[in-house]
This record gives sequence, C-alpha cells and structure tokens, in this order.
Amino acid sequence: MKKVLFATTALVLSAGVAAAEVSLSGDGRMGVVYDGDNANFNSRARVKFTLSGESDSGLAFGGAFRVDQEDENGGSASQGAAGSVFVSGAFGRVEMGDVVGAPEALFGDFYEVGYTDLDVDGGNDILYLTGDSANFTENNNPELLYTYSTGPVSLAASFSDGTNPSAPTDGQEMAVAGAYTWTNYTFGAGYEYIDGGDTGVDAGQVDLAMVAALGATNVKVFYATGTQDSTLDNNFGIGADYTMDAWTFGGYVQYVDLDGATFADYGDAAADNAVWYGVGASYDLGGGLSVKGGIADNDLKNSDMVADLGMKFSF
Amino acid sequence: MKKVLFATTALVLSAGVAAAEVSLSGDGRMGVVYDGDNANFNSRARVKFTLSGESDSGLAFGGAFRVDQEDENGGSASQGAAGSVFVSGAFGRVEMGDVVGAPEALFGDFYEVGYTDLDVDGGNDILYLTGDSANFTENNNPELLYTYSTGPVSLAASFSDGTNPSAPTDGQEMAVAGAYTWTNYTFGAGYEYIDGGDTGVDAGQVDLAMVAALGATNVKVFYATGTQDSTLDNNFGIGADYTMDAWTFGGYVQYVDLDGATFADYGDAAADNAVWYGVGASYDLGGGLSVKGGIADNDLKNSDMVADLGMKFSF
Amino acid sequence: MKKVLFATTALVLSAGVAAAEVSLSGDGRMGVVYDGDNANFNSRARVKFTLSGESDSGLAFGGAFRVDQEDENGGSASQGAAGSVFVSGAFGRVEMGDVVGAPEALFGDFYEVGYTDLDVDGGNDILYLTGDSANFTENNNPELLYTYSTGPVSLAASFSDGTNPSAPTDGQEMAVAGAYTWTNYTFGAGYEYIDGGDTGVDAGQVDLAMVAALGATNVKVFYATGTQDSTLDNNFGIGADYTMDAWTFGGYVQYVDLDGATFADYGDAAADNAVWYGVGASYDLGGGLSVKGGIADNDLKNSDMVADLGMKFSF
Repeated sequence: MKKVLFATTALVLSAGVAAAEVSLSGDGRMGVVYDGDNANFNSRARVKFTLSGESDSGLAFGGAFRVDQEDENGGSASQGAAGSVFVSGAFGRVEMGDVVGAPEALFGDFYEVGYTDLDVDGGNDILYLTGDSANFTENNNPELLYTYSTGPVSLAASFSDGTNPSAPTDGQEMAVAGAYTWTNYTFGAGYEYIDGGDTGVDAGQVDLAMVAALGATNVKVFYATGTQDSTLDNNFGIGADYTMDAWTFGGYVQYVDLDGATFADYGDAAADNAVWYGVGASYDLGGGLSVKGGIADNDLKNSDMVADLGMKFSF
Repeated sequence: MKKVLFATTALVLSAGVAAAEVSLSGDGRMGVVYDGDNANFNSRARVKFTLSGESDSGLAFGGAFRVDQEDENGGSASQGAAGSVFVSGAFGRVEMGDVVGAPEALFGDFYEVGYTDLDVDGGNDILYLTGDSANFTENNNPELLYTYSTGPVSLAASFSDGTNPSAPTDGQEMAVAGAYTWTNYTFGAGYEYIDGGDTGVDAGQVDLAMVAALGATNVKVFYATGTQDSTLDNNFGIGADYTMDAWTFGGYVQYVDLDGATFADYGDAAADNAVWYGVGASYDLGGGLSVKGGIADNDLKNSDMVADLGMKFSF
Repeated sequence: MKKVLFATTALVLSAGVAAAEVSLSGDGRMGVVYDGDNANFNSRARVKFTLSGESDSGLAFGGAFRVDQEDENGGSASQGAAGSVFVSGAFGRVEMGDVVGAPEALFGDFYEVGYTDLDVDGGNDILYLTGDSANFTENNNPELLYTYSTGPVSLAASFSDGTNPSAPTDGQEMAVAGAYTWTNYTFGAGYEYIDGGDTGVDAGQVDLAMVAALGATNVKVFYATGTQDSTLDNNFGIGADYTMDAWTFGGYVQYVDLDGATFADYGDAAADNAVWYGVGASYDLGGGLSVKGGIADNDLKNSDMVADLGMKFSF
C-alpha cells in the first residue's frame, strides 16, 4: 500500500507538456534502526523514471516506475507488474499496472512514521482489501484504476480482469469509492470485493474515511468492516500530522478486530484483536534533506518497540 | 528477433555529437488482449538508455540497452548479454552484444500486428537461423555484427566466437548478407550457418528478400530454405503496410514447411507445415500517442484467433 | 574492491549544487579476451545514477549506484546492499552502503590492467581485509565509511554494525586508516579487524602504503601483514603508471605469503605463496574513447597467461 496522506491531490490532471519525455527523480536515506533487539545501519538509494506526453488533441499520457521496482513475484514494469501507465483527459484518468484499489486512491494511508516506515509492528498502512498487488498477483496484474474529479466530488473504480487461463484459481477483485470535499473536510466511502473464484472464498469490505486539512494540521479517520467471508471484523484508525516551521510531527493508532483469524503472524496466536501505533517527527533542512525519526509498537505479546533515526534525501 | 520493418535505415552512421552522453527514451502501452479464451488487461512501461560519443578523429561509439533488458539466461547488458555497444566510422559499423544476425540486420521482420505484437500463433518475426540469442546463448554472448553501406550497397556479417571452455557444447554461428537498392526496391540475399560443435548437428539456411518502398506503401517478401541438418524445409512470407493520413494498416502471412519436425509446440504434432497471418491497424494521435489493434491466427488444429486493442506510448 | 588508483582525491567535498538532481553517466567496452585457452568476444554497457543535493545550510548529500548493480547476494541499492549514500560537510563525509573499508578508501588498488581488468590470475586488487562486501555480506550491509581531510592529513574509519538477529554468525568488521601528504608523496597506514562472532575466528591486518605522484608517473607501494587468526602472512605489492601524450603504460606485481592456507582456489593446493603481475597500456582517442590492452599471469602451477585488447567507452 502506497504511503500517501491525502491521495486526492493525485487526481489533479497532469499539466500539459510540450513534448514526450522521460524524467528522473530519486530518493535516499541513511540512519540507524532499532529492531527491538539491536541497532542496525540502514540505508538505500533509489531512482524513479517518470514518462509524460500529450497528444495533439491534449490527451495526457504517461507512466512511472522505479529502477528497482518488482512485484512480489519478480514481475517488472516491462510486464505491467510494477509501476503503471495512464491516459487522462476530460473523462478522468485511466491507469493500468500495479495500481492501488479505488478507496486507497482516494484516501491513502496514515502518516509514515520514522525514516524507514517502521511497519513491523503493524504500521501506518490502512487495511484495504484490494489493489496494490494484495491478491492474485500472479493472475491479474496489471489491474485498472479509474479516477475522476469534478468540483468537490472525486470518484474511483478499480478492478482486475479476473481471468487466468493457466492458473487453478480464477479470482477477481473490484472496488469503488467516492469522496466529497466541503470546506476543509473530505468525507468518503468505498466498497471492495474479492470473488475468490475456484477457492470459493469471497470477501467484501466497507470503508469509511474522513480527512480534515486544517491549516498546519491534517487529520484522517478511517473505519472498515468486513463482509462475506472476510477475516476482518473491524478496523478503526486515526492519523494526524502537524507542521510548525521546519518541524513536522505525526502519528497514527489502529485498532483491528479479526473474525475467525488470529495475529499468529505477529507472534501472538491467541489474540484476535490488536492495537498498534506509531509516532514520529521530521525536521526539514531544505534542498531535499530532512532528519526524521519515530517509534512504533503494538499491544500483542512478544512484541518489542522499534525505533529509527536518520536522514531522508529527495532528488 | 527485433521488430524492424526496414532495418537498412539503421545503417546510416550516427550523426556526430559534441560530447559523450547518456540519453533516455521510453515507451508504454495499455489495453486489452483476447488470448482465444478470455480478455485480459495488458500494460507495460519501459525505459531505454542510449550512450553516444565521438572521438577526436570523428569515430562514433556508443551503445544502448533497456532498464529491464535481460537475455533468456538472466544475463544483463553489463555482461554483454543484452543490449549492445558499437563503434563506427568510414570502415562501417562494428556492434557487439545481443545483436541480430547479418540477414536480420539488413531485412528486419514483417509489420508488427496489434499493440502487443500478438505472436503466439506464429507472429511477424521472420525465421532467421542465427542471431538475437537464438542459439548457444549461454556460450557465445556477446556476438559480433558488422555492417557497411556505400551508395546502393549494404553488407553485413555476424558471428559468435565459437569457444566456451566450460560448456560441453562448443557451437558457433555465423552469417553474411548483402542488399542492393535500385530506385524504390531493395534486393537482398543471405546465408546463415550453425556449427553444432560437439552435438554434431549442423544447420544452414539461404535467405532471399525484396523490399519495396512505394510512397505510402511498403512491401516485403522473404524466402528461406534450410540446408544441412536444418529442420526448416522452406519459409515464404510477405508483409505490407499502408499509411493514409493518421492511419496505418498492415499485415503479414507466412508459410512454413518443416523437415523432420512438426508443430508440436503449437499443439499440432501431426502438422509439418503451417500458414499463419496477422492484420492490424493503428491511428496516430500525435505527440507519441497512438491507438493500435490487430488479430492473428494460423491454420493449425487447436489454434484460436487472438486479438488486441490498446494505446501505445512513445517518450 | 573498487579500482581506484589514487583514492584520496575522492575525499574532496562535492561542489555545492543549486538543486537536488539525478544525473546519468555510462561506460562501455568491446574487444577480445584470451583466457589461456581461447579468444572470446567480450563487451558490456553500463549506466550509473549519481544523486546530488545541498541543504539550505550547505550540507552536501547524495548517492550513486549503477543500474545493474547488485551485491553477491542479489541485494540492490534499494536495500543498501549496492551503491551508497552520503552526507558531507565541514565535519567530513559519512557514507553508508556497499562501501570500501577505511584503508581502501585512502589507498585504493593498483593500476587496472587490460580493458577487462584481467584478474583471474590474481589481479590488481590489493588484499584488504575489510569492506566492499568482503565479509558477512548477508549480515552487515550497509556498512559505514567516514572520511575526513584537512590540509595534508586524511583520515578514514569504517565499520559494520555487528548485529544480525536472524543469522547464526554475528560477526563485525572495522578499520581505521590515516595518510599524510608531503610534496608529491603520500604515506599512509591502516589497521583492519574482523570479530568473527560465533565462529570464534578473529582476524586482523596492518596495512602500510606509499603513493608518489611524480608528474607523468604514479607509483604505489603497499605492504600488509596479518595478525590474530588471519590466513594472510604477508602481502607486498608495487604498481605504477606512466602517461606520455595519449599513451598510458602501467602494471603491478604482488607477492603473497599465506599462513595455514594454500592457493587451492587457483589450482595449486601445494603452494602457500605466489607472485602475480600484470602489465598493460592504453591509448586515448579523445571524447571518451580509448584503446586498452594487457596481459596478466602468476607463478602458480597450472596457470595460463591471460590477455585482452579492446576499446573502452566513457559517457
């Protein structure tokens, strides 16, 4: 799940460009991560290609992917399994590739804590059911995401093609979402559905979101409840960030109640509900350099608090 | 096999450049492919690096490869197994890497049908015997391709080095080709040969080609016959394309007769000859955006027609 | 081990840049390599990303990695296992990633022979004990390298974090080095140490180096002796290069005496000491194009001389 706080801004159509081009951007980070037992060095450098063009009649088209980007099955942008391509115009924007689901396209995730994201104890990602290679990655990539924005209204729909002649499971996923912005507040709702195909296990999820942009403060509230055979009972979360001069402070807390499943993956096979949270801060040094750190933990047994502190680079 | 309609244009020497540089280009596509059973989303985004320089005395040198480019064995451009490098001057052009064979360098393939190429039923690729990682890829990459052009005459030669101390098979491939252009017509011939080394299976092939560039219409005719232990008896094909305003229409048909082999790979183990074809069209929206679609099929048993329709991006 | 003749020049702080950016450079090569039995074609093309930025207060930050760059375990720059990132200022330069050890950062390796490096018989790499993914690569990447330069003095320190909760061996490596430059001569010393962790095998090494930059001639002398459980008894080497107009001539010779180990990897299980050497030349054609060749061999049994000749491209 992509780390976007207010993803609705992504619906603005690309400004017209004079000529088709490939542009480069990059990011980096370096610092120290405490994993609950030890402190380790952690660094990385990445480069992203952004493709952009405009047809004679003003249709925008393009795409984007990172050099290192591969999906969980080793698929690359050259196979439609990482990054994405799009075409956009007055009709909205059609994007194909390793896209997020419709609700995530409109509501994003919570504030990202720490310079490395610190998601081992739960993390800032909202528990969307679909998109972002969450299901049937071997079958259904690329997926399609459609977004449209007019005045205060934003709409999104996403779906996989649901066919895979060579695989035993022929599942499909689809989702719709809508958002309405009134003054500084955006209210949204979405519905996601997975047809499990030959597995016979179908799952649905209703998503509700509220985003408030109050000057230097952003607040996001999210609620989801599972339907059909979903293992999610309820997910409630709240995230916020506050900017003061060069400082930004932020955090999130999520409550998750499972239905017929436990947090065994997190080392607590007896727990069917959990609370996790993270808080952090960053200081902007200008020119693309910032210092960022955070801590994160959950209330499950055998869980240790994790923390990091480092520099983030943007090029 | 590379998709080049009139590859002879590639023989023009690179224009002199002021300074050595790395430039970026890219392509993308998105649409729907019907594979004979189902319709599936299909998209991709790719970026290519082009390296170019010129020595003080005017010798051009450079290379090119794609970010995603690897050969069938996972070899990359950094190992000479994908992309290629070249040096060119009055003596012609010497290219090393994952190159095509000499006849393909001069005659190319037929018109590419559909926005995804649609080659599962046969395809627009001409059945050249050598080059393009067709044989001994684990042994002989990189291969060498030499091309020379003067007035109406184009010449090409290609060969692998034929030595591989660590592999059991020590095969080698080589090919020569020539073309003569008279008014709008180019006539060409080539000979390709594989020394199977320790396998003892040698194969040869004679290639004949004619290309006509008649204003808005291009026509290509190709004939090949196998020699020595080749499993190809005969290959005859014709391809054409016609451009009218923003529209381009094109297609190909190939007849292939095998010798001591069958089309079992295509699901028809009883057939030793086949006809396959493809037709398609594209509409240029300007700025690097076009809409393209096509259909392709063959006359083998258990074969379904395939089709696609989508957008192609060029950056 | 990186191929840097006078690595001390790398200590110059990056010049301030107006805006954060990603720039491209590349290299290529093509030619013929004689591997002792056969002559083979050998070519490659590579592209490197250089990331650079400057904070409002003048802190430089950046990073660099190649498209094809992965460490021995398949790790990429996006995991801190290839390439590196840095931040530098008046305090010096802190670099994290797949860095070299402190002594190699100051003294580098010997002149690289041939257009392909020709290191199968020993090579121009100095036998540093640490850095450059030499040890614990699965545990300890990224590593940290600190360098500082003031007037005639250069200092360096490098270390891995020494913790790896998931691996059985919890080793750590660290090194320090210093250099003093007087007129055309640089004298340096370093100490490297590996704490083998659970293996109980610790190793140390004392390094001494002298570099002379005498106009067109560069000479480097290196001596190392192993301590603790090191399998190196002594390593003595000398390398030089001389530039005359467009020509550059260079070479190296290394003597290595092992302690409780043999050169079985080189096909001579009875030998515990060896001499290897290489000589070569290059001719600069300008614009980034040069012709380069060399030969290399050692005095071990069953060893064949290797040689190459080809073109090197720089973009």
